[in-house]
Amino acid sequence: TQQLLSEPSLEASRARPCRVSTADRSVRKGIMAHSLKDLLCKVQDTLMLEDKPFFLVLEEDGTVVETEDYFQALAEDTVFMVLQKGQKWQPPSEQGSRYQL
Amino acid sequence: TQQLLSEPSLEASRARPCRVSTADRSVRKGIMAHSLKDLLCKVQDTLMLEDKPFFLVLEEDGTVVETEDYFQALAEDTVFMVLQKGQKWQPPSEQGSRYQL
Repeated sequence: TQQLLSEPSLEASRARPCRVSTADRSVRKGIMAHSLKDLLCKVQDTLMLEDKPFFLVLEEDGTVVETEDYFQALAEDTVFMVLQKGQKWQPPSEQGSRYQL
Repeated sequence: TQQLLSEPSLEASRARPCRVSTADRSVRKGIMAHSLKDLLCKVQDTLMLEDKPFFLVLEEDGTVVETEDYFQALAEDTVFMVLQKGQKWQPPSEQGSRYQL
């Protein structure tokens, strides 16, 4: 046990379930990721973002997730949102009308 | 257990997730910090505050957080707000119009 605890690379390499939403909340996908870097790669493929730059925020309040250690501290099944250049996080209520169409 | 409890350095050294907002609530970032001092350093880098003096308050009600022990007593994922000279905490409702753009 001692050895496992002192091996941060093992901890970091365990894949964890993440949920990733588009900025307009129209699509949400489940993705397994070992790290923030891994998640960023998979998001690009899964949501077909081409080569446009993007970043991840928490879907609940728009907190920017840009460091590996903060990513590792988040709960499993945290919902992320992808924001591309020019896109801004908005609270869910203000996007409610989209669902009523 | 006895040994762990009497070792304040261990407790203080455990990094905890914090969320830090700018005064206008336009940017919120996730930051891991071992202590208030550590958070203040990382906030300066992460939010690119240059060398202007600043302090941290609770985003929810503007409570000034300036002691290490008060910081340690806060819940994980507490939302802090950075205030620089001349900036004043405002309740979210008065900034609501920004989100409607």
